[in-house]
Amino acid sequence: MSLRLGELQTPALLVDAEALEHNLRSMARALPGERLRPHVKAHKCTMLARRQAALGHHHFTCATIREMEGMAAAGLGEDLLLANEVLDLRRLARLDARVTVAVDSEETVAAAARDGIREVVIDVNVGLPRCGCSPERAGALAERARARGLSVRGVMGYEGHAMPVEDRAKRHDMVSQSMALLLKAHADVGGELISAGGTGSWDLNTWATEIQAGSYALMDTAYAKLGLPFRQALSVLASVISVSEGFAVADCGLKALGMDHGNPEIEGARVWFCSDEHVTFAPEAPARVGDRVRVIPAHVDPTVAYHDTLHLVSGSEVVESWAVDLRGW
Amino acid sequence: MSLRLGELQTPALLVDAEALEHNLRSMARALPGERLRPHVKAHKCTMLARRQAALGHHHFTCATIREMEGMAAAGLGEDLLLANEVLDLRRLARLDARVTVAVDSEETVAAAARDGIREVVIDVNVGLPRCGCSPERAGALAERARARGLSVRGVMGYEGHAMPVEDRAKRHDMVSQSMALLLKAHADVGGELISAGGTGSWDLNTWATEIQAGSYALMDTAYAKLGLPFRQALSVLASVISVSEGFAVADCGLKALGMDHGNPEIEGARVWFCSDEHVTFAPEAPARVGDRVRVIPAHVDPTVAYHDTLHLVSGSEVVESWAVDLRGW
Repeated sequence: MSLRLGELQTPALLVDAEALEHNLRSMARALPGERLRPHVKAHKCTMLARRQAALGHHHFTCATIREMEGMAAAGLGEDLLLANEVLDLRRLARLDARVTVAVDSEETVAAAARDGIREVVIDVNVGLPRCGCSPERAGALAERARARGLSVRGVMGYEGHAMPVEDRAKRHDMVSQSMALLLKAHADVGGELISAGGTGSWDLNTWATEIQAGSYALMDTAYAKLGLPFRQALSVLASVISVSEGFAVADCGLKALGMDHGNPEIEGARVWFCSDEHVTFAPEAPARVGDRVRVIPAHVDPTVAYHDTLHLVSGSEVVESWAVDLRGW
Repeated sequence: MSLRLGELQTPALLVDAEALEHNLRSMARALPGERLRPHVKAHKCTMLARRQAALGHHHFTCATIREMEGMAAAGLGEDLLLANEVLDLRRLARLDARVTVAVDSEETVAAAARDGIREVVIDVNVGLPRCGCSPERAGALAERARARGLSVRGVMGYEGHAMPVEDRAKRHDMVSQSMALLLKAHADVGGELISAGGTGSWDLNTWATEIQAGSYALMDTAYAKLGLPFRQALSVLASVISVSEGFAVADCGLKALGMDHGNPEIEGARVWFCSDEHVTFAPEAPARVGDRVRVIPAHVDPTVAYHDTLHLVSGSEVVESWAVDLRGW
């Protein structure tokens, strides 16, 4: 019953089964069980989350309400952290799951209490200019939350500004400085959770009680530059639809690729540019119409979010096809 | 029954009803009926295509098989052109619609004939390094197509390299040069169609028998730089979820925005950067958690492709909500 790769309509999102398995197992060995709280935003796929759960990780991180709903519906709701601020939480209060949400202001504390949320973490800004209160305000905010009847499980803080730093020693320093801020906040807040980290700091962040890595499962060309022990598992299968003097065109474009980190890569070719449904590239060896190429996205998360199916492949066989069922909001 | 803007969950894709109407009517006046073959790839929405049809345009351009299928199913299949090369056309041959596909090689001609397609146009490279045969080869390719029993309706050639050129006179020159190539090819190919053009050349391209513009309906910040008479109709409504010293964060990120043309814009603010689900920006006036902002994407097409619904708004009222029903492949 299984499909061959050649039968897939293109563009098709592929996951190399062996690389995925390697990535999931390597991480599970290094950060077993609850030491890892896999972030589902990178893969948006409950079937992939099941594989992570089968390897011992039963607490998950989400970025959107839709991800929380989908994980709960899939029976993966043992301990779901929405690591993001949300102002209307009514859909979350209905879930058959343990729900914890990030708060970083009076307003988000009030919204959580109003909408029937019971557990929160205090989101602390540890250097990335994004969400999170200042470390100095964390303790007072926790008090406000407790005064409103919320249970405060601890702190989170994402050292995202350190992730793209290629020099490992420098990255380590930045992670260390960020975590010093988070530990300081935690001393004021209390609770069992110090939730932080990502794929770029998975082994450097030794201060957090749990690491929120997500990209490690599939990887992309941006994270590949860091020399991590995770393999490129994600690609987009494309068909060469046109060949001209000096260049060729395949059917994988801007609507099949996250482009914020720049152009994708194609092995044995130089990518010129992408259009809505095309990638124009100069192949080293002559290409022919009908050839299939693997396009490696620069950024995994916004790439996956364009596709409704993710095909797990082994060699030229499609082992399984999984719905990317956590898309949208 | 109609929603208020404040009730929409964010991020939400908005279309300003008056701006859309202005854009559609302006274009229909300038290029009435079959002079315009609206490209649906920019909006991917059959309800919006219905509005274009109601204004007199009954021939449409598509970029994917899925767009062709959706338009046919919506009863908008009077004359559908797939302006792209495709190697497996079996799904197209089944459609209840007049189907014409672009071919630019022996292989794509053979695929069209094999899969039961009856009508084609010869796609000609007019300067953009993408699909299309060389103008010199167009006549011979048309002969090959006719020898295989295909009806050749004419030529198409997209002068996409001219679209971003801000200087109007220079853009006009480039369009003119491209169309000279297309007319030369057409002289060898024959047929009633000379299909070309886009929003950036909508009034400059006086050689084509029909213009394939699509972006004009919704517009984006890239096309806004050309000084076209079309108004910015598209935005993403976002909620401010976090405010810090000097910056704020709203819930519209990389998975809600096409990023290949760069960062989006927010009126009265400077955008710093986008993350998966966030935009960090410096507002001129102090922002508050719960404020709503309109984020203007740099590129309309890949933005729309991330959303499943498009809300037509007038002032603070949501007039209609349309499914973005032509996504995927």
